[in-house]
Amino acid sequence: MKRSMLVLILLCVVSVAPAEEGMWVPQQLPGFQTELQELGLTVDASQLADLNSEPLAAVVWLGGCSAAFVSNQGLVVTNHHCAYGTIHFNSTTEHDYLHDGFLAPSFADELPASPGSRIWVAVGTKDVTEQIQAAIPKDAAGLDRFKAIEAAEKSLVKDCEKDPGHRCRVSGYYGGSQYVLTKQMEIRDVRLVYAPAESVGNYGGDIDNWMWPRHTGDFSFLRAYVGPDGRTADPSPDNVPYQPEHWLRLAPEGVSEDDFVMVAGYPGSTDRYRLADEVEFTFEWAYPERIKMLERLLEIIDRETEGRPEAALAYTAVARYINNGLKNNQGMLAGYAHSDMLARKRALEAGMEEWINANPDRRDRWGSVLADMRRLIEEEQATKDRDLVMSRLKRGTLVSPARTLVRLAHEREVEDADRQPGFQDRDMAKLEAGLRRFQRSFDVQVDRAFLKEVLKKAAALPEQQRITALDRFFALDPYDETEVDEKLDQIYAQTEISTQDVRLEFVGATIADLEKADDPMLDLALALLPEELAWERAQEDLEGRMLLIRPQLMQAMVAYLESQGRHMYPDANSTLRVTYGTVQGYSPRDGILYSPFTSDRGLLEKETGTAPFASSAQLLLAVADGEFGPYATAKGRLPVNFLSTVDTTGGNSGSPTLDGQGRLVGLLFDGNWESIIADWDYLPPVTRSIHTDVRFMLWVMDRIDGAWNLMREMGIEPAFAPSSFSGDGDRG
Amino acid sequence: MKRSMLVLILLCVVSVAPAEEGMWVPQQLPGFQTELQELGLTVDASQLADLNSEPLAAVVWLGGCSAAFVSNQGLVVTNHHCAYGTIHFNSTTEHDYLHDGFLAPSFADELPASPGSRIWVAVGTKDVTEQIQAAIPKDAAGLDRFKAIEAAEKSLVKDCEKDPGHRCRVSGYYGGSQYVLTKQMEIRDVRLVYAPAESVGNYGGDIDNWMWPRHTGDFSFLRAYVGPDGRTADPSPDNVPYQPEHWLRLAPEGVSEDDFVMVAGYPGSTDRYRLADEVEFTFEWAYPERIKMLERLLEIIDRETEGRPEAALAYTAVARYINNGLKNNQGMLAGYAHSDMLARKRALEAGMEEWINANPDRRDRWGSVLADMRRLIEEEQATKDRDLVMSRLKRGTLVSPARTLVRLAHEREVEDADRQPGFQDRDMAKLEAGLRRFQRSFDVQVDRAFLKEVLKKAAALPEQQRITALDRFFALDPYDETEVDEKLDQIYAQTEISTQDVRLEFVGATIADLEKADDPMLDLALALLPEELAWERAQEDLEGRMLLIRPQLMQAMVAYLESQGRHMYPDANSTLRVTYGTVQGYSPRDGILYSPFTSDRGLLEKETGTAPFASSAQLLLAVADGEFGPYATAKGRLPVNFLSTVDTTGGNSGSPTLDGQGRLVGLLFDGNWESIIADWDYLPPVTRSIHTDVRFMLWVMDRIDGAWNLMREMGIEPAFAPSSFSGDGDRG
Repeated sequence: MKRSMLVLILLCVVSVAPAEEGMWVPQQLPGFQTELQELGLTVDASQLADLNSEPLAAVVWLGGCSAAFVSNQGLVVTNHHCAYGTIHFNSTTEHDYLHDGFLAPSFADELPASPGSRIWVAVGTKDVTEQIQAAIPKDAAGLDRFKAIEAAEKSLVKDCEKDPGHRCRVSGYYGGSQYVLTKQMEIRDVRLVYAPAESVGNYGGDIDNWMWPRHTGDFSFLRAYVGPDGRTADPSPDNVPYQPEHWLRLAPEGVSEDDFVMVAGYPGSTDRYRLADEVEFTFEWAYPERIKMLERLLEIIDRETEGRPEAALAYTAVARYINNGLKNNQGMLAGYAHSDMLARKRALEAGMEEWINANPDRRDRWGSVLADMRRLIEEEQATKDRDLVMSRLKRGTLVSPARTLVRLAHEREVEDADRQPGFQDRDMAKLEAGLRRFQRSFDVQVDRAFLKEVLKKAAALPEQQRITALDRFFALDPYDETEVDEKLDQIYAQTEISTQDVRLEFVGATIADLEKADDPMLDLALALLPEELAWERAQEDLEGRMLLIRPQLMQAMVAYLESQGRHMYPDANSTLRVTYGTVQGYSPRDGILYSPFTSDRGLLEKETGTAPFASSAQLLLAVADGEFGPYATAKGRLPVNFLSTVDTTGGNSGSPTLDGQGRLVGLLFDGNWESIIADWDYLPPVTRSIHTDVRFMLWVMDRIDGAWNLMREMGIEPAFAPSSFSGDGDRG
Repeated sequence: MKRSMLVLILLCVVSVAPAEEGMWVPQQLPGFQTELQELGLTVDASQLADLNSEPLAAVVWLGGCSAAFVSNQGLVVTNHHCAYGTIHFNSTTEHDYLHDGFLAPSFADELPASPGSRIWVAVGTKDVTEQIQAAIPKDAAGLDRFKAIEAAEKSLVKDCEKDPGHRCRVSGYYGGSQYVLTKQMEIRDVRLVYAPAESVGNYGGDIDNWMWPRHTGDFSFLRAYVGPDGRTADPSPDNVPYQPEHWLRLAPEGVSEDDFVMVAGYPGSTDRYRLADEVEFTFEWAYPERIKMLERLLEIIDRETEGRPEAALAYTAVARYINNGLKNNQGMLAGYAHSDMLARKRALEAGMEEWINANPDRRDRWGSVLADMRRLIEEEQATKDRDLVMSRLKRGTLVSPARTLVRLAHEREVEDADRQPGFQDRDMAKLEAGLRRFQRSFDVQVDRAFLKEVLKKAAALPEQQRITALDRFFALDPYDETEVDEKLDQIYAQTEISTQDVRLEFVGATIADLEKADDPMLDLALALLPEELAWERAQEDLEGRMLLIRPQLMQAMVAYLESQGRHMYPDANSTLRVTYGTVQGYSPRDGILYSPFTSDRGLLEKETGTAPFASSAQLLLAVADGEFGPYATAKGRLPVNFLSTVDTTGGNSGSPTLDGQGRLVGLLFDGNWESIIADWDYLPPVTRSIHTDVRFMLWVMDRIDGAWNLMREMGIEPAFAPSSFSGDGDRG
């Protein structure tokens, strides 16, 4: 049965053209050969399915972002916002590369990426569904099932990672119907090659985030380095540029409206196949509650940092992050308000139930699957208030590193292989980096106010969802503000883990060590541990039961939709996907059309002289004079950003946007406001992705920043370089 | 020379196609026959020039608005906002016609228009330039010139108005190069026939004012009544519907993108030919200062009416009016910020000076005209601060009616013919209505705060611009708040003219009567009178000198622009004009296009359930069900509003929008945000007028309000009337 599922899901050759919705597993693409050709693909679709050939072999993963090799010397192009940490890491008051931009004149001048930066290059994938299934004891349900799958995954990863310099992952598809092991080469020496000024790379900033029209040159260049032996290596001056077998060619002429485009990258996560009950819960409870909480946190930052510029600075990034989340969640609700998603989901489920019951075989197989799943969802939602409080407790306050230390001590009581993911030896570098990074956004007064806010929420939890450790530690039942304030004062006065070095000293400590430390913040984390573990087990048990039901549900849904001539692709899960579509504007509201392209004109219109709308005088003059060289359109405009119908989400940032020949025509860097809800519900008339046009990137490189060395490395002859005599000069 | 000017201005046959800019005097249109035909006019352009034929003969004036006859029974269509006062006047808590709409089932049910409502029907025009010129003593300058022209105008008007039931006006064109006497029949019995609900007629309210996309059904119907003898008459039950010789036919199929449209109406005032110095002063001093003042007034209303709902209600209309002015002025500044108008004006003047000086004849004739005009402008601006204070003193406080009474008493010391316009016998009804109306927007506390604000400004005036009457009356030099407060308390405690009846009793009083009354507010007005008269004389003197120079300047400018192949039309002056263009959207910003049409889709999108975005359930259901009958486009949408390039301004509201056959396809009701500055500077790419589509009007009449009697009166067979069997019914 499993085998047939695979065929059904990944290899189905479709006759009906799929919509432009779809984050396709590369292997699915040959099935759309005809439609792809009609839209404008000129290479064979089977080439798109080949992970060891261009273009896919050139696409790499940076963790939260995607990127691509664009030269045989390991040059990597990605978004400015994906290289932001690295640019920031190298910036000082003396050399403010973030503000001014950075260009390495030669390889030797390239700068180290921020610690922990990686480039993962796909080596291969392997279907491991059989191995995983085989590892599950017959009829194992709940916690047993969960643990069995987790253990099988860990074992597969461990085996795979025996090859040094590689990193492996097992990813589940269709709610656990299928499992794939991915092996990636892990490049650990990453360097910054070129970033335009922030006024180009982050033009429009948070204000324009998710918005159209857009005018952002959201690109930067990194380089992958390996040891002299060609194998991955820790950063070292002896390392040499990595020479990939495949890299992308650029199409400096760009694309036009209606042209075919495709995007290859690593989309993070979507929820396209959730049931109506989950949609209703998320949009009518979870997002509204989260918005309320985030708004409260922003108020707290404002209030507690007033008149304290250093504290305010410490929370700038946090506030920005919260604002981003807020804007996203508000976009979700805005999209939901104008959407009939819930009704469509309910109708789909009703149709599916009818279809299942119309046939005895189907009824036998799937007759109870929807009802079963709904019961599990209901169970999951029963602890929603507590889960919200717990999720807040896990981040943003000193409780978070305390819990990390306690949990690490707890996990270290067992063998590495049996530890919780995130606390294994392979995770230690990342864990320590997190403990260090905490300091950057810490201020006692704000931290205390955040924690107090969480305690207020905890005190208001209903009877069945109380967090007894908190109740006892802070005497929350009933809530007495004076008492809580006293306790908080005492904790923050006495804890020493607010100091970075102290935190790091506790890495590797045992539970006994932590208890002995007599630090009230650690004591709080220690007090929370037993309940936390119990809940985790309960969640894993529930998850295990879902892992039994959801694959069946997905099989039924795939079969039902196929019976209606509709095609499916798995939800995004940070694995390599290809999405295709066309360059298209849209109508956001009656009477308004958004053009598919923006141009230089918008840079003059938006200019305010104040960031994020402050272009350099050099750029403004070049724009005013129309010095666009070969990058101009037939109408003499410089294309800056464009919209397309490709289906992307977070994680796709930095993905190469390719034309019908598989050549680079832009970089995916955002979705439009109407696309926020697309993680749940792709709406063809309005869901759009936003790309930086390759012509704007090349123009900035050529006319503004003189990054001629990189252009030549990519095989593009600059038009504005002195030696190219492309100006008024004599070609003699 | 004058004769040649006339030919030059009004009758020039042009070979170069004029841009769509232009509020043309009808007689100019035959000169554009070829271009008009190319754009889509199918009637002869000479017919458009004929005031005694369709369509122009059907176009009427309501004072601040335009309108048109649409039946042979005196039915008049105009904007909802033009009939607002009348609808409001008839509304009670019991019958809230403003909110619910109103439809008279029969002639007998039609309601009286608000007092003072008039419909003016053009009877004829006559060029009186020669008479005016002849009345000016040779070489008369300054005050003498001004007074001579004023006297000549009054005399012409008086002669003309000897024909009872008519109203006459002399209008100056091109800064006084030409004068035209207009005679209009004055219909005094006006009745309300039909108005849709405010949720249609004022959909979008102040929020959408000047904005696109727009979804307003800004239409209403009035009817003109005359005495049984067919002559104009005061309102009476014996009156009968006026039977115009000409009325407009409707084109229920409407227009499409790129179609020719024209608008005939009475645009109020534009400043297209002002010099750079005037532009600079207005946009860099006058509008910013006015905005500051208006913002202060709004703050005062907010502050002083807080917790006093009745006072707040009294100032609702005032605040709305101020907000409108504020939005307009801000629009002016926004347009100016993105405009090179000042530079273009300067370049034009430089080119013109060069052209004048390049030829001895021209130099003799116009060599000093620009410099002369600039000196006069400078003189005018020298008292700008004082003029701003004086203009505020003339409105919005109790000082205003006090000044009216004092001025009336002063004017009545001379013969009626010699009185200041506005204080002659013919003006008395209007003047008394104003004194009555004052009460509607009066509250002592706000009034006092307004006045105090003006006094603060007066106290801050520079030495040469002091208002000595105020300085003395309030001891403003230096400003002592306590003293001013005491004086204000005393004035408002003692004055009796805050009572409507007392104010009206003083109408007709002599200066001596007013002095005897010993009312401090009247005393203030009396104290201001001598200075006011002196300034007025100074202004008239300046105006007289301008009336010598500006016509010469305009002649030079016309000649210069004609020499460059450009064509001119006179600034708007509330006389009948025709503007033509095409149905066109525009791009307000890079990446955004505004479609020329909005549709029913926007009504669902904008719906919030709260005014001004609260359609009736009936309308929403009809829209949701797509019940658009014959009013739908080929794509099944209901067109609601549309944009065109026609050149309009305030006063054009309610103007009929006509297709190439001269049939009614909509009603002009607004300009877009970018058109606000068009009063100074028409910008072809973005200046647009906004129209209610005739199809939306008919659909509301037919499907929503059942105004089938009116549709049939206009010769349109309803699609939704029970008797028309156009639904699912059997046509048997």
